[in-house]
Amino acid sequence: MAIVAVGSLAYDSIITEKESRERILGGSLSHFANAAAFLSKPKLVGVIGDDFLDEDIKFLKKKTSSLEGVERAEGRKSFFWKGKYSPNFDERESLATELNAFEHFDPKVPESYHDEDYILFLANIDPVTQSRVVDLCAGARLSVLDTMNFWIEKTPKELSSVFKKVDAVIINEEEAAMLTKTPDLVKAGKILMDREGFKFLILKKGSNGVMVFGEDYIVSLPAFPVDPVVDPTGAGDSFAGAFFSYLDKHGMDLSCETVKTAAVYATIVASFCVQGFGVDGIDSVSDEDIQNRMEDFRRASGF
Amino acid sequence: MAIVAVGSLAYDSIITEKESRERILGGSLSHFANAAAFLSKPKLVGVIGDDFLDEDIKFLKKKTSSLEGVERAEGRKSFFWKGKYSPNFDERESLATELNAFEHFDPKVPESYHDEDYILFLANIDPVTQSRVVDLCAGARLSVLDTMNFWIEKTPKELSSVFKKVDAVIINEEEAAMLTKTPDLVKAGKILMDREGFKFLILKKGSNGVMVFGEDYIVSLPAFPVDPVVDPTGAGDSFAGAFFSYLDKHGMDLSCETVKTAAVYATIVASFCVQGFGVDGIDSVSDEDIQNRMEDFRRASGF
Repeated sequence: MAIVAVGSLAYDSIITEKESRERILGGSLSHFANAAAFLSKPKLVGVIGDDFLDEDIKFLKKKTSSLEGVERAEGRKSFFWKGKYSPNFDERESLATELNAFEHFDPKVPESYHDEDYILFLANIDPVTQSRVVDLCAGARLSVLDTMNFWIEKTPKELSSVFKKVDAVIINEEEAAMLTKTPDLVKAGKILMDREGFKFLILKKGSNGVMVFGEDYIVSLPAFPVDPVVDPTGAGDSFAGAFFSYLDKHGMDLSCETVKTAAVYATIVASFCVQGFGVDGIDSVSDEDIQNRMEDFRRASGF
Repeated sequence: MAIVAVGSLAYDSIITEKESRERILGGSLSHFANAAAFLSKPKLVGVIGDDFLDEDIKFLKKKTSSLEGVERAEGRKSFFWKGKYSPNFDERESLATELNAFEHFDPKVPESYHDEDYILFLANIDPVTQSRVVDLCAGARLSVLDTMNFWIEKTPKELSSVFKKVDAVIINEEEAAMLTKTPDLVKAGKILMDREGFKFLILKKGSNGVMVFGEDYIVSLPAFPVDPVVDPTGAGDSFAGAFFSYLDKHGMDLSCETVKTAAVYATIVASFCVQGFGVDGIDSVSDEDIQNRMEDFRRASGF
């Protein structure tokens, strides 16, 4: 079994109240692979520019099982994002979004990626492109997409159309409220499950945890209490990476019990993400660190 | 062991999008006793007016072990509150607050209430009165107070002074943010524990669950997913009633494990509160209903 992940590879400049970082490795795929790699190194489909550093290629090689689907756009720069977080990380302001190579991203899924059964993860990109990739990957055992407020507002029809094609989505509470016109998350989750016919729906609530709606269950978990938070960038993609790597390692079983354990595991891996800048928080931890924090989480929230 | 609870007895008129109720039994003590009664019927200290109905006295008798500390203020009416909830219950507007008998509430704790060891629960009343009651109840094994945004704004000094006298507090996320000037709840909880020297702190997050900060632990739990919500009035007092009845039944053990199990139990009892108007949601359930929902909660959130 394997995971094929399609999304962005980027450089991020991040400003927080205490510290800042210039042009560190970011993008949904970097965070996704970083978190998935403990259990299942994914195969990536993405695009980088001329400026993408050898050390970052090396990092991605370590975290993935194939980069064959990552192309370099000659004459263009990599996707660049600059953002500033409020002192308590409850808001963030985008100071710059330069799509560069990503603007013309035309995902090509290498033949070799179809050699074994796989989960298809579509990180947040425009729904038309997502739809095209789903068509290219008709053989995927499970297809999942992430999206964002921008596409919900600007391309609701296209998004609705790709919703019909995938098995599951991963969204946050703001997006769930926008999609259903209700801030009541239990209600919103049920509405989306009924309306879209998903196999499951992951509803991320940041520091308030996560819910997973299945065909005949709701899983609800708190977050692992982290203090201090250093940089929340990539926490959602890290959660997704860890979650789907767990499902991949457990035969894509979608029973309540396996999905819940996957969500517990992903909560722990994602909690390390926010404790460092960019990919550092997760990259610096060992399997043992994860196991130890699982025990701490069990003490705080297990029953 | 026993619980002595001091607070309000009231009539509430409640307007929700779907339904309304006129002058139903409310007040912190009604909800607290309603939830506590499954494990430990509390002794109440409160005040009612001329208009307080016999059937409501009968209800309270069923849920408590003594009403000796409840006095009737001749010539006055009972505390009355009228409020309207937004369609999704995320906001509420007070349309009327008539303190009536409660305005001159001068709590007297009957001698008999000191006959056995007890937990003292001070529901949300003005901190000067709370402070006086704590002094009257110097023999309490554990003293806990609830408060609200009004007292944090209007009488911060008085509140700070009574904080020093009690063992624990129960507040919500808005109140924690006001008291610490930070919306980061993990940070806020730690600040309050350090600053006030509480034995523990309960931080209620509504539909996002609850955290309990102890001297050497943090417990964090999600809410039980309820849909539809009928009337959230009294959910916090119900949580407190169930939580302290559990501690009372378990020797006031403040270990992480007992506190966590108390919080799980209280989450379930409080989840029934919001499914009916006033005290109806909890009053209509059996021990078996609670056990069954505990199993549902374990399936959704236990690990």
